[in-house]
Amino acid sequence: MIHLIGLSGSLRAGSFNTAVLKTIGERLPDGAELKLFDLAPVPMYNGDLDGDATPQSVVELKQAIGDADGLILASPEYNYSVPAVLKNAVDWASRPAFKSVLKGKPVGIVSASMGLTGGARAQQHWKSIMSGVLAEVVAMPEVLIPSAQNKVEDGRVTDETTLGFLDRFIETVLAEITRRSAGN
Amino acid sequence: MIHLIGLSGSLRAGSFNTAVLKTIGERLPDGAELKLFDLAPVPMYNGDLDGDATPQSVVELKQAIGDADGLILASPEYNYSVPAVLKNAVDWASRPAFKSVLKGKPVGIVSASMGLTGGARAQQHWKSIMSGVLAEVVAMPEVLIPSAQNKVEDGRVTDETTLGFLDRFIETVLAEITRRSAGN
Amino acid sequence: MIHLIGLSGSLRAGSFNTAVLKTIGERLPDGAELKLFDLAPVPMYNGDLDGDATPQSVVELKQAIGDADGLILASPEYNYSVPAVLKNAVDWASRPAFKSVLKGKPVGIVSASMGLTGGARAQQHWKSIMSGVLAEVVAMPEVLIPSAQNKVEDGRVTDETTLGFLDRFIETVLAEITRRSAGN
Amino acid sequence: MIHLIGLSGSLRAGSFNTAVLKTIGERLPDGAELKLFDLAPVPMYNGDLDGDATPQSVVELKQAIGDADGLILASPEYNYSVPAVLKNAVDWASRPAFKSVLKGKPVGIVSASMGLTGGARAQQHWKSIMSGVLAEVVAMPEVLIPSAQNKVEDGRVTDETTLGFLDRFIETVLAEITRRSAGN
Repeated sequence: MIHLIGLSGSLRAGSFNTAVLKTIGERLPDGAELKLFDLAPVPMYNGDLDGDATPQSVVELKQAIGDADGLILASPEYNYSVPAVLKNAVDWASRPAFKSVLKGKPVGIVSASMGLTGGARAQQHWKSIMSGVLAEVVAMPEVLIPSAQNKVEDGRVTDETTLGFLDRFIETVLAEITRRSAGN
Repeated sequence: MIHLIGLSGSLRAGSFNTAVLKTIGERLPDGAELKLFDLAPVPMYNGDLDGDATPQSVVELKQAIGDADGLILASPEYNYSVPAVLKNAVDWASRPAFKSVLKGKPVGIVSASMGLTGGARAQQHWKSIMSGVLAEVVAMPEVLIPSAQNKVEDGRVTDETTLGFLDRFIETVLAEITRRSAGN
Repeated sequence: MIHLIGLSGSLRAGSFNTAVLKTIGERLPDGAELKLFDLAPVPMYNGDLDGDATPQSVVELKQAIGDADGLILASPEYNYSVPAVLKNAVDWASRPAFKSVLKGKPVGIVSASMGLTGGARAQQHWKSIMSGVLAEVVAMPEVLIPSAQNKVEDGRVTDETTLGFLDRFIETVLAEITRRSAGN
Repeated sequence: MIHLIGLSGSLRAGSFNTAVLKTIGERLPDGAELKLFDLAPVPMYNGDLDGDATPQSVVELKQAIGDADGLILASPEYNYSVPAVLKNAVDWASRPAFKSVLKGKPVGIVSASMGLTGGARAQQHWKSIMSGVLAEVVAMPEVLIPSAQNKVEDGRVTDETTLGFLDRFIETVLAEITRRSAGN
């Protein structure tokens, strides 16, 4: 069984990126599952709390990432970069530096946005960040979902072309997790 | 009178970046002042709250930026990128897109970190972000403060070389604000 | 009279980006002109030649940039970043560091590509690079031309929507040059 | 036997980055070797030559990368980004897109520079570029060599601390190549 954890970069109730994660979860083949971890309760990172005073939601986040075989980030792009809510989660999870639960973790990234570039700039920044935490981003052509408002309905992706991309994304991520685990 | 607003990217009580802002505030020449805006009360961005439900702390942040002649960002680098607390503030302030209080605003960036690169990667991401909000980053060699733990004491920068850099930073930022306002 | 110099990031005879520059040149209002500088003769940067042995084509490039009121970069995106031919030109022109003809130079950036993101990633890297040479990128929503193969014919942009974007780009760049020169 | 190919981002006769590659080559353990590929003869990328007219030096470059088990990039930082000579080589080698000799290739990156940040910004851009060609950058804390002029003598790295970093770099790169090849 392959266990994935999904983190959405948007807190909106009608978030396109949360919809992408739910859609991925429902399209996984047998032998794989995805759990969404809700980032709403995670407080803003504060170095003074990093250690004995780590908030309970952060303890749970780190546990969930540590237990998972892979991490799926679904991220909007805000101002040509990453959203704070998801960066914040990654920063908490990245501690202690270079030895965190993110080290060596396979990561798949998908981005949905209302703009025409589909989050391409955010994905660039995510790749910098993932290299900083020593995670291993699955190498594949980027899954960008532009004009997401036309491709999501009732909290699920409905656009056929996009569903095709997501299926290939799933396939590649699972194959990488299997390959890497064989190599370890 | 030139009014600057300073935003720190760290919530730590002993933050090096907050110390940098306080030091800058105390070294400004006559005719200029810097106010720190505390980001601790600003909640995580949520598109559902962006509009009539905008939190009061965000209303105040936008007011403060709108009223200022220039913005000073003091930012640590977390995981090769920007800290969530400061990105979050910028995202709130950036609304509505392309017409926000950040549009055309002169911005000076300084970064302090315990590492050896002094936040160089975070500054790259900040420049992407600032271009996304149409702010105007003051063009100058980057002010990076590596090994900040050796250069800050009791909440103020004490290292002479660093103080020299900060004085040139102040001078350049104020000159740019004056030049740009003349050009408008 | 406002003099612009245009540099294309592609050496292809049928380059979309060269076509964009030619189109811009023909749509400038009275009182402004754009000259293309051909980068084909510029050799690869070599620090050993930087100084007394500077190649003649580089001397001419630096002269042309120094004489211009503004610089227009038209850049394809290669492998999520900038093309070597244009980076090479900028590197030659950037010498000596922090005191080059690029310092304080207003720069407008446009990118055309066959992909769907229109060069958004390349523009991010260009902004890093332009900050490194202390040039001043004109702050505006990015001019990205995706699917350029459908918008260019016989060496000129023919797509009406794109021509509208280019006209606003021209207007903004010229206004900035005028504003900045007033402020100096 | 593990075969590595090394590409230097500087054409200078006394290049620090070329010195780093030579030093790495001499410190490899038994069972591994590194060949430098000279980029001086590689012409500037031109899409019109990409295909039947591919220059001979490019054919040889692609062959050398294809034959190697891993690629080592030694890169200076020019203007907050990558040097044209090395980007140009990668662009040639990246063709055809998503199916090139770079796809899935393990890549180690090291950067030496005279500045204090040691090429950190160039490494960020390299990681974007490597993701664009679907290469797999070895995940490890970045090997940055600042103030390289004090650490290199007679074309070899002589600084003991730096040699220690290089030895760990070598060890990690070779371990990754072994692990990945086991997983395939």
